[in-house]
Amino acid sequence: MAQPYDFPLDQLQTYKPVLTKQNDFDSFWETTLAKLAEVPLSYDRTEIQYPSKGIKVYRIVYKGFHHSNIEALLALPDSEVPLPGIVSYHGYNWCIDGDIHETVNLALKGYAVLKMYCRGQYGESADNIVSSNGHVTGWMTKGIQDKDEYYYRAVYMDAVRAIDVLAAIPEVDVSRIAITGGSQGGALALAAAAFSSIPKLVVADHPFLSNFQRAIDISPSLPYNELNEYFRRYSGKPEIETKAIETLSYFDMMNLASQISCYTWLTIGLIDTITPPSTVFAAFNHLTCEKDIAVYRYYGHELVPGSITTRLQLFMDYLQK
Amino acid sequence: MAQPYDFPLDQLQTYKPVLTKQNDFDSFWETTLAKLAEVPLSYDRTEIQYPSKGIKVYRIVYKGFHHSNIEALLALPDSEVPLPGIVSYHGYNWCIDGDIHETVNLALKGYAVLKMYCRGQYGESADNIVSSNGHVTGWMTKGIQDKDEYYYRAVYMDAVRAIDVLAAIPEVDVSRIAITGGSQGGALALAAAAFSSIPKLVVADHPFLSNFQRAIDISPSLPYNELNEYFRRYSGKPEIETKAIETLSYFDMMNLASQISCYTWLTIGLIDTITPPSTVFAAFNHLTCEKDIAVYRYYGHELVPGSITTRLQLFMDYLQK
Amino acid sequence: MAQPYDFPLDQLQTYKPVLTKQNDFDSFWETTLAKLAEVPLSYDRTEIQYPSKGIKVYRIVYKGFHHSNIEALLALPDSEVPLPGIVSYHGYNWCIDGDIHETVNLALKGYAVLKMYCRGQYGESADNIVSSNGHVTGWMTKGIQDKDEYYYRAVYMDAVRAIDVLAAIPEVDVSRIAITGGSQGGALALAAAAFSSIPKLVVADHPFLSNFQRAIDISPSLPYNELNEYFRRYSGKPEIETKAIETLSYFDMMNLASQISCYTWLTIGLIDTITPPSTVFAAFNHLTCEKDIAVYRYYGHELVPGSITTRLQLFMDYLQK
Amino acid sequence: MAQPYDFPLDQLQTYKPVLTKQNDFDSFWETTLAKLAEVPLSYDRTEIQYPSKGIKVYRIVYKGFHHSNIEALLALPDSEVPLPGIVSYHGYNWCIDGDIHETVNLALKGYAVLKMYCRGQYGESADNIVSSNGHVTGWMTKGIQDKDEYYYRAVYMDAVRAIDVLAAIPEVDVSRIAITGGSQGGALALAAAAFSSIPKLVVADHPFLSNFQRAIDISPSLPYNELNEYFRRYSGKPEIETKAIETLSYFDMMNLASQISCYTWLTIGLIDTITPPSTVFAAFNHLTCEKDIAVYRYYGHELVPGSITTRLQLFMDYLQK
Amino acid sequence: MAQPYDFPLDQLQTYKPVLTKQNDFDSFWETTLAKLAEVPLSYDRTEIQYPSKGIKVYRIVYKGFHHSNIEALLALPDSEVPLPGIVSYHGYNWCIDGDIHETVNLALKGYAVLKMYCRGQYGESADNIVSSNGHVTGWMTKGIQDKDEYYYRAVYMDAVRAIDVLAAIPEVDVSRIAITGGSQGGALALAAAAFSSIPKLVVADHPFLSNFQRAIDISPSLPYNELNEYFRRYSGKPEIETKAIETLSYFDMMNLASQISCYTWLTIGLIDTITPPSTVFAAFNHLTCEKDIAVYRYYGHELVPGSITTRLQLFMDYLQK
Amino acid sequence: MAQPYDFPLDQLQTYKPVLTKQNDFDSFWETTLAKLAEVPLSYDRTEIQYPSKGIKVYRIVYKGFHHSNIEALLALPDSEVPLPGIVSYHGYNWCIDGDIHETVNLALKGYAVLKMYCRGQYGESADNIVSSNGHVTGWMTKGIQDKDEYYYRAVYMDAVRAIDVLAAIPEVDVSRIAITGGSQGGALALAAAAFSSIPKLVVADHPFLSNFQRAIDISPSLPYNELNEYFRRYSGKPEIETKAIETLSYFDMMNLASQISCYTWLTIGLIDTITPPSTVFAAFNHLTCEKDIAVYRYYGHELVPGSITTRLQLFMDYLQK
Repeated sequence: MAQPYDFPLDQLQTYKPVLTKQNDFDSFWETTLAKLAEVPLSYDRTEIQYPSKGIKVYRIVYKGFHHSNIEALLALPDSEVPLPGIVSYHGYNWCIDGDIHETVNLALKGYAVLKMYCRGQYGESADNIVSSNGHVTGWMTKGIQDKDEYYYRAVYMDAVRAIDVLAAIPEVDVSRIAITGGSQGGALALAAAAFSSIPKLVVADHPFLSNFQRAIDISPSLPYNELNEYFRRYSGKPEIETKAIETLSYFDMMNLASQISCYTWLTIGLIDTITPPSTVFAAFNHLTCEKDIAVYRYYGHELVPGSITTRLQLFMDYLQK
Repeated sequence: MAQPYDFPLDQLQTYKPVLTKQNDFDSFWETTLAKLAEVPLSYDRTEIQYPSKGIKVYRIVYKGFHHSNIEALLALPDSEVPLPGIVSYHGYNWCIDGDIHETVNLALKGYAVLKMYCRGQYGESADNIVSSNGHVTGWMTKGIQDKDEYYYRAVYMDAVRAIDVLAAIPEVDVSRIAITGGSQGGALALAAAAFSSIPKLVVADHPFLSNFQRAIDISPSLPYNELNEYFRRYSGKPEIETKAIETLSYFDMMNLASQISCYTWLTIGLIDTITPPSTVFAAFNHLTCEKDIAVYRYYGHELVPGSITTRLQLFMDYLQK
Repeated sequence: MAQPYDFPLDQLQTYKPVLTKQNDFDSFWETTLAKLAEVPLSYDRTEIQYPSKGIKVYRIVYKGFHHSNIEALLALPDSEVPLPGIVSYHGYNWCIDGDIHETVNLALKGYAVLKMYCRGQYGESADNIVSSNGHVTGWMTKGIQDKDEYYYRAVYMDAVRAIDVLAAIPEVDVSRIAITGGSQGGALALAAAAFSSIPKLVVADHPFLSNFQRAIDISPSLPYNELNEYFRRYSGKPEIETKAIETLSYFDMMNLASQISCYTWLTIGLIDTITPPSTVFAAFNHLTCEKDIAVYRYYGHELVPGSITTRLQLFMDYLQK
Repeated sequence: MAQPYDFPLDQLQTYKPVLTKQNDFDSFWETTLAKLAEVPLSYDRTEIQYPSKGIKVYRIVYKGFHHSNIEALLALPDSEVPLPGIVSYHGYNWCIDGDIHETVNLALKGYAVLKMYCRGQYGESADNIVSSNGHVTGWMTKGIQDKDEYYYRAVYMDAVRAIDVLAAIPEVDVSRIAITGGSQGGALALAAAAFSSIPKLVVADHPFLSNFQRAIDISPSLPYNELNEYFRRYSGKPEIETKAIETLSYFDMMNLASQISCYTWLTIGLIDTITPPSTVFAAFNHLTCEKDIAVYRYYGHELVPGSITTRLQLFMDYLQK
Repeated sequence: MAQPYDFPLDQLQTYKPVLTKQNDFDSFWETTLAKLAEVPLSYDRTEIQYPSKGIKVYRIVYKGFHHSNIEALLALPDSEVPLPGIVSYHGYNWCIDGDIHETVNLALKGYAVLKMYCRGQYGESADNIVSSNGHVTGWMTKGIQDKDEYYYRAVYMDAVRAIDVLAAIPEVDVSRIAITGGSQGGALALAAAAFSSIPKLVVADHPFLSNFQRAIDISPSLPYNELNEYFRRYSGKPEIETKAIETLSYFDMMNLASQISCYTWLTIGLIDTITPPSTVFAAFNHLTCEKDIAVYRYYGHELVPGSITTRLQLFMDYLQK
Repeated sequence: MAQPYDFPLDQLQTYKPVLTKQNDFDSFWETTLAKLAEVPLSYDRTEIQYPSKGIKVYRIVYKGFHHSNIEALLALPDSEVPLPGIVSYHGYNWCIDGDIHETVNLALKGYAVLKMYCRGQYGESADNIVSSNGHVTGWMTKGIQDKDEYYYRAVYMDAVRAIDVLAAIPEVDVSRIAITGGSQGGALALAAAAFSSIPKLVVADHPFLSNFQRAIDISPSLPYNELNEYFRRYSGKPEIETKAIETLSYFDMMNLASQISCYTWLTIGLIDTITPPSTVFAAFNHLTCEKDIAVYRYYGHELVPGSITTRLQLFMDYLQK
């Protein structure tokens, strides 16, 4: 069944909601990037045993936003020449065993791959921003009453710094770096591309954190529904919702889209109820860079096998000499 | 249907699993209480308008564990004499509109009622302990790799301090204080009673955070299943589970039960799948104080109307002169 | 998720379906009220113990329509002056432990509260109208082949008489009476206000029994679906459905709406699938009295905490001197 | 999957719970039968058109218990000699289009078939016993506080009278009558056989209304769960449950079983969750007549096609000359 | 609830999608019929015991398409004159115990009834067409990459031959034959009527295999969703979907509809999610023969009792002299 | 939740049901292997483009049992020396996009990997055995009335031949071949190891097709439940079930287990409801070779990430020099 709860494909292709940027949108991000810049680039690298020939795997711990420790995996295929690199971001509440096998599998195709663990979500990535307010389970509403405390502010910056870290790895050719991820990872790839000039390519599957107002209205699923759940908790205080919606506007992928300059490839399944197609098209249609979107009629919120060949080809075209 | 997944009632009544205390169980809690004692008792009190005669409602912000701000509601019925008091703790991820109406309704029966908002879960109660590790959505696994960072360490102490705060309210008679709550709130009531000598009565409905190992095995539901979910994320690192189980032992209600000295009344429904009856009996059967448990054959994880009369009578018997 | 199965809010606000009154609509109700008037006002009052200071609780048994015994609760806060009164009606198949605690909690705010038990649904309220026909489980289709036998004819009249009973209580000031309820109780409050001149205020949450034809089409839930189920049972006899639809027209809240003259406040949640928003707006938009409706975007068929403050304020404004 | 929630087959075969008859069990039923006897046998018969050769269909309205009108269908195949007869009872809340086609299909095999419509459940069968108490949706708890008012008292008697009516039909040979039904209908067939000496054969599929205490404990489904729901409504009044359980004992099929004297054939599916196998074996193992039970491993609460051949053969063996 | 996922009734009544016939549509079927004609009419007939007077039941095995054995049931009521006949086709994956009782029940009304067992789906009907390709579970995609190998090509021809077999039964009057079925059986009845001049009447309930493109888009259920599942398996090979859609066009009931010349009666329930109403109207609105459609508002994919009287009347009107 | 429906772990570890081999079990398989031997080893190899360095991918079509075409993928990493090889079998109804990326990912670790497509389930693997009987959707009951026609007879032989094909690839070192798969693929790996002397290692995840009688009793899920569904279709013909059970005995993994001689490593999750743990232990406990089983408490029927490291290490230990 094609998605019965969202627009048909032809409407999706032209769906371009009005942006919701506040006046200080740009200055907020300038300040934020300046705070990130105050943290010097720094990382540790320790080898991890992995039972395969042709690959070396390392545990990376680098300093992220607010000087927090952020853990990551690094997989380097054996190579005598500098390697093209890929930074990979994981989905929301979804990093299982550190995605180590997925990371290795991509690296074995000839790439230095860095998988960042989102702060608070996995491994030793510490979420060191204290929110002055309570929230519902999950991270969607953590700090949502104050844009400076909002969870994703730090995560977006950690994602930017992850690119810097990969670029600083001696085996990596900084001129050939792509970034990728699905769902939350797709959003992080887009956000990082909006703030970093390093990436030559973005591959984002069914990106999350876009067009929040519509997501609240039509997504029947977590994690967008953490917002609905949060608003329910304050049924007698509508100002809480108003403030939260304002905070979200700073992090909305559609508001950040125009800052991306490299080629960007998105994928979306038409029966995706977690990141409804319209929210993804909202971001896509606001992209001003070179771009494409692959639409899969029979797929939901999942990696589409048929999309893998295309992305591997893109990685070869953009990153391999 | 009576619960098909747990022991029958006669086995529940004698179910008393071996305690899982580590050697330093007592010293851990001594240290923890000492750290709480370092935070001086301090609170602000601001009146909130509430459309009812005979009652005044206040917003309280007090200093909890690690000097964090903890928000609470205080409802005081009009009275010319000192009032008996009740501290009330809310369920996990479940404080809706601050439970203000429930708090007022209890207060109108002649009690000064303080409702504590759990840190990180509601209002302006800030969760200011940074965990060095990631976790799954929710608070069950936050800090679980280190007992000093575990989420409930601070919450248990905030719960103890909440009693001190109510006792310090001028309108309250410190010699007549009870504590109560359901689910997470039931666990907090029991934990606070284990660490505070103030309460004269504990009323705990289907308390959570008890007999974790059995909960992991038989509960099909959140939030205990956050533990299962967390262990799944580390299928290649069994030491993570080992450490987590050790951390949980410090917070297990059955291990704390023998420290409670006042009369304690528990309730449990036989079809409760969120806090399975056996986990509640595990705590109950380890209580050494005067105690009773009310068992409701047709009820799950919910407040049983028929239990309200009993608890109101207990409040009268223990708190009213 | 906002409701995907009903109109968007702006259409709801103007949705005003054509009324479905039969020619003898008015005479049917005149006859019915005349039959109620034949039953003399009569009630028994017995005290019930309740473990709270400041309140007295009574069991009331009064004579309702067709001389049936109707049971009710009466809660009277201690007062030296006449009390304002509130009649409260319960939801369909939903009176648990007689709602005694809810009744007491409202009374403690300074009101004499009478909770009527719907005939056949709880306590010793006897449903003494015999239907000549069978029906499906529930009361929605009981007597539906004959408007004189239809279940709600008697219930509407019992609800009117409940107001008379409260007005006759010596402690009550007849000039300050409100009526309230949710779902079925909301419908009964509206119906009673259509037939009684006593109430000064109606507070009706997500009222049931309105705009039946649309409810049949869009509600996926019981109890409206009892109608669908009933019609299925007579797939070979379409005249059964025709007659039932005609009967329902006499009881449809939108057809009764214009008879209400006091201020009326409704609430509805946008994700309510039991009493879909459009069916509630159908009644609201046909009200000709002073009126308001509170719309809750993230709520379904449930009491919204944020609405309680508003209703308590309304009770104070309309009932307290 | 074989039933995981009930006993395995070998335990079922010997499961014989202690009977729960009250001292006045026999006198209660003597009184009840005497009251039925006060209603003279009386029925009307009107032909209904049915588009098939070889058959005539009639609407019957007879006087049942308490002089109520009870509707039934009668199907008579063309025959020049007296016909064997079958009384058929329908399932709970389940008579769709009067089961007319099923009735005709059985009649076409050479039987006069009378299908009784349960009072209150279908057609013009009027439920004229007024209960002094409320109940939950459905009929299971209607009148349950008083055995004289309990719903099934009248229905059992209507079922007995239905046999008398068929026996009085001129085309029928009174010496060759069987009775049958499934679920509620199975219980009615057993009950009628306990009180009537006319039937030569009982065929009862997965009979309902048996071994109530176990049903309450293990059935996860309606309609047995109406009892659980009812008991929930009175969580503060355990005497209500006690009285209800006592009332049910008079109507429990296992208590009535020993009164049946003709050959009785039962069927049950091992994955039946509506009438769990143990409750059916409870009745079967208390039968003292000649008897058999067919067990279907892969079937739930449904008519098993493979059982039809057997029952048709039984009808031939017992009813056809 | 009326169907929220499909067109409202007034749009259904005029929904007539553009046909999707390929250029060689007619020649494909000419060739196919010619291949059927190469198989000489041949059948075996063996009596089966059935415990009813007035009827004889036989097992038929005839030669179907590609010379495969096709099993069928034949039920003949006792008659001294030639009988009108009905060929009946069963639903997809749904022939339980050979539908023997249903077959007998229809026959007892005065018809020779032949129930064909679809090849591969029941009994000894062998599916002897080997597909060169794999498919998903079920038959919907078996052979879908080659119209000559597609599963339903042979089944449609077996259905045509079933009519020839019934017509050849000595007890049958070839001039009075109808065909019928529901779901897959409804499609087979329509298909057989498109290719055979024998039937005088078609009765098809909620026919399957119609307007595939819309079914793929809106049906949330199996078996149409086997197509969606199949297309998912080839997300990297869109040519597989293209070819499959082309194959389906030859078997689409709306493309075959205009070839039917006898009176055709369809039924559909408005809440049918298995064969959505629009797909059924797509076929109905392309019929050029005399036709009617009965629409049932409260019914899904199920036999509607109220429709049985009508169909029995049609059988009488068209088949009985 | 650990599995509540199956044995606890300590009972699983000793669960060893009595074997169900028929007398001609060995001769049946001798005959079957002889029939496979009649098909000469033969395959075609065509390169497929894949966008990765270091790997070449080929489409293989070889002759399987009964001379059918069987398609497979072959992935060969660049290597100047002979490669160790792995044959991989896929799950039931579960080969998506040919598992090409998974196949490549394994090959990149230094192995020649052959992925066989099961006949009838994917690609151009043709299922050319015609069954004389019908079955339910799926392959579990195809041919189940005759062991020579049973679906898995051919598939087991195709699996054996797949090993021969990989062994015949010039780039492969025949002395270093392992076989692996999950679910159906796990069963095929075990079956192929029972019939082929080539493999040095078997890695089987949650193998299917084992201990059928228990699976029928306790698995609530497809595909084992195809058997339950099939038996339901013949409720009046118990001989059909008897015959099917006999046929299954020839293919039951526990009956074949003792024929495996190389080291065998199994995995199972304790909450696996598709291949319940006891059915897997039934096979494991009958293995007489060197063996181990990894048990995952929090996992169901899914590849456990934590098991991948172990299996890669096993591949290195057994296959890499």
